Amino acid sequence: MAELKDLTKRSVNYSQWYNDLVLKADLAEQSAVRGCMVIKPYGYAIWEKMQQTLDRMFKEQGVQNAYFPLLIPKSFLSREADHVEGFAKECAVVTHYRLKNAPDGSGVVVDPEARLEEELIIRPTSETIIWNTYRNWIHSYRDLPLLINQWANVMRWEMRTRLFLRTAEFLWQEGHTAHATSDEAWEITQHMINVYADFAENYMAVPVIKGKKSANERFAGAVETLTIEAMMQDGKALQSGTSHFLGQNFAKAFDVTYVNKENKPEYVWATSWGVSTRLMGALIMTHSDDNGLVLPPHLAPIQVVIIPIYKNNDQRDEIAAVVDPIVKEMRRLGISVKFDDADNKRPGFKFADYELKGVPVRLAIGARDIAKGEVEVMRRDTLEKHYAPLEGIAEYCKNLLEDIQENIFKKALAHRESMTRTVDTYEEFKEEIEKGGFILAHWDGTTETEEKIKEETKATIRCIPFDGDTTPGVCMVTGRPSERRVLFARNY
Amino acid sequence: MAELKDLTKRSVNYSQWYNDLVLKADLAEQSAVRGCMVIKPYGYAIWEKMQQTLDRMFKEQGVQNAYFPLLIPKSFLSREADHVEGFAKECAVVTHYRLKNAPDGSGVVVDPEARLEEELIIRPTSETIIWNTYRNWIHSYRDLPLLINQWANVMRWEMRTRLFLRTAEFLWQEGHTAHATSDEAWEITQHMINVYADFAENYMAVPVIKGKKSANERFAGAVETLTIEAMMQDGKALQSGTSHFLGQNFAKAFDVTYVNKENKPEYVWATSWGVSTRLMGALIMTHSDDNGLVLPPHLAPIQVVIIPIYKNNDQRDEIAAVVDPIVKEMRRLGISVKFDDADNKRPGFKFADYELKGVPVRLAIGARDIAKGEVEVMRRDTLEKHYAPLEGIAEYCKNLLEDIQENIFKKALAHRESMTRTVDTYEEFKEEIEKGGFILAHWDGTTETEEKIKEETKATIRCIPFDGDTTPGVCMVTGRPSERRVLFARNY
Repeated sequence: MAELKDLTKRSVNYSQWYNDLVLKADLAEQSAVRGCMVIKPYGYAIWEKMQQTLDRMFKEQGVQNAYFPLLIPKSFLSREADHVEGFAKECAVVTHYRLKNAPDGSGVVVDPEARLEEELIIRPTSETIIWNTYRNWIHSYRDLPLLINQWANVMRWEMRTRLFLRTAEFLWQEGHTAHATSDEAWEITQHMINVYADFAENYMAVPVIKGKKSANERFAGAVETLTIEAMMQDGKALQSGTSHFLGQNFAKAFDVTYVNKENKPEYVWATSWGVSTRLMGALIMTHSDDNGLVLPPHLAPIQVVIIPIYKNNDQRDEIAAVVDPIVKEMRRLGISVKFDDADNKRPGFKFADYELKGVPVRLAIGARDIAKGEVEVMRRDTLEKHYAPLEGIAEYCKNLLEDIQENIFKKALAHRESMTRTVDTYEEFKEEIEKGGFILAHWDGTTETEEKIKEETKATIRCIPFDGDTTPGVCMVTGRPSERRVLFARNY
Repeated sequence: MAELKDLTKRSVNYSQWYNDLVLKADLAEQSAVRGCMVIKPYGYAIWEKMQQTLDRMFKEQGVQNAYFPLLIPKSFLSREADHVEGFAKECAVVTHYRLKNAPDGSGVVVDPEARLEEELIIRPTSETIIWNTYRNWIHSYRDLPLLINQWANVMRWEMRTRLFLRTAEFLWQEGHTAHATSDEAWEITQHMINVYADFAENYMAVPVIKGKKSANERFAGAVETLTIEAMMQDGKALQSGTSHFLGQNFAKAFDVTYVNKENKPEYVWATSWGVSTRLMGALIMTHSDDNGLVLPPHLAPIQVVIIPIYKNNDQRDEIAAVVDPIVKEMRRLGISVKFDDADNKRPGFKFADYELKGVPVRLAIGARDIAKGEVEVMRRDTLEKHYAPLEGIAEYCKNLLEDIQENIFKKALAHRESMTRTVDTYEEFKEEIEKGGFILAHWDGTTETEEKIKEETKATIRCIPFDGDTTPGVCMVTGRPSERRVLFARNY
């Protein structure tokens, strides 16, 4: 059961507020295994809604799901030079395949005789095992394009972990496509980042800035990485989805060629793209407040909760008789509704609990309301209460849910805009970055300058935006030419 | 692309036929990691339909999904004495968390400095990590029951593997429930085996026998194991789902107590239940034939395929004009339909391919058929062709799909009945078991007798059925009293 008290205020300690909220709203908790979380039923229900929506969006693009092995032979990681640098450092290594009873009867120990010839790595991402598989699937241009996605768990042995934001094991989807031409692969790379932006903005109600990563921040093994970057309430950036143009790097590493229409062999072109349970962190830190979660209606497991206020069984029955057809009508309209007539909790407790859980709309209804033909409506985003007629309440809620969805997106967008500034000098940059938020500034395009800025200010280039001001200028640090302003921020 | 030739005939080599079919119908293949399979898009689409159906059925029972860690501390396995015996022998052990560049530049090697203090096991099943978590979730009788399921990958280091039937890594769902009383836990154990039987019979069209396992065949750590057992075409049994009454074994091992209504602490009662990608094997080996897969309409990714037969573009356009509204009407009726007007494959190739893939209904339509107002219909289960009026063809197909669903179930049931015999002497038993199928015989209830039978005949007790003849008798081996006949078979 959720504990309603002791949620740290955001103004006191944002990081503590986040952690409290994840625990108290029953979203997730740490497990007995360092860095691995347990996703609790309420948190998982939100993730499931994200999955279902994204899965539908992928399938509309012609993407098919499949499943590839959890374990990757160690040698596969080394095949692509950049990839191994990026992923070999922090990974879980399987070295043995059997335990045996300890000689002293104290439990079980690793059986030294059951050592694997080649160690296996728990996948940190699946490019290597998938491209090793594609070699046998792709022979001719007629086998292309191949548009495949998998929903899976992956593992990266992170030293500092935070629930949803950075965990050793996390859940994600990874799309891996294969194409006959560079143009087609590049098109899909761009297309998928647009799908993610659509999902972030229209389902999560999280405004994002689309752009490409600097060379330094690219995925290990990619030619280009595209990203969507969101701003959290504390002004920090959260990378919310990436789409990689892999060129022919993995095709060459795993010798995947196809015979083109002219009957000549060519290396295949690749993309990969993913979002993860990290999105749960973005969702929480974009909308929630000191009373708990605020969920976008499009992803809320319960969109409307109805709470009866009664003094005796007669009143309870009277209310149920009025509410039952309303519940039916709401379901008919596609609204996920819960009538919470549990007798063992007081209405005040229920109010606080559903606030904490972020249910977008709460209706409270008593015998007096019925007599007046109305119902008390509370919208979670503004916490405002008002009365609405019982007549047509289902349709009313449907519109209200859309209104809330739109309102929280606008609020998040306004917040981002208020915390996005343009600066011209490095001195000003250093001052401004301390206040948080996004900063648009000129940069000379070199990794050296980028790293100097990172070391001195902890800010990184979140992306080179697709949109916005494209006027050239001079780098704020070196004074060298800059093609356009890029987006800086401190980030999660 | 599927290769249509060279599917071994069942009568020649059933095992080879199975393997050929899994590969040629694009369901799955071996990966580069020993014993781990790749589930290909078409195979995964069938598994997704199974998942969606089961997930809905679980949720109707009030079960919620959650997610627990992939890795389990080694010491957890030892907490429950039987459990460790069952699962510690064959498991993947993570001992290190980092790789480093090999000194000789040959690739990456395990970093000996990154050795874990306690080894971690890739979950073979999650009772231990889940009950360790439940300790913090359950305090009072008000926290019970807890009905939780997870969809996950698990790993058991099997020595001999076969696609879907026995793989080192497989996908499954595992339900883990917690209850205040033994009765309630036992009730859920029974209820879930009924849910599985309902799914097997009404979606997979696979008839099953429900019963309980003998002590010898119980899940490691269970007090009772219930099972559904299906018969494959070759007469071998395939255990298709199990539901375990765990008593207080895991609550005691992980110290999970609750305070009852009288304010006294008591250990919690548990169940667990699961089905896996093994069901794909059951599906294939129950219905398919020498031409390929036969899929039950309730789980077929494509239920109806429509293939145009044309000689020129005018005819093609004419057919499309007729088919388009039919496709719309079918979708409105909830039929999953594909209009395959791809120009680069001949109709004969398409026919064979969809036969191989087990699409339940195929419509072929040419200009002449349109003139006559009819369409050629082929049903995959019987391979019979006939003509049906174009008028009302969507509704016609909807009924035909139900007819096929029913027909393949009846066929499988008739096959099982024809291969189920009752025997009274051990001599007769030894003869009959060589012919395959199920044998109902008396057994004295001891593990000794059961193991003797297994050693001498390779047959095991598949279950002590819930239904059927309950007349007592004498054990066919020892002549000692037997409570009732039990079900013997050789099995996958």
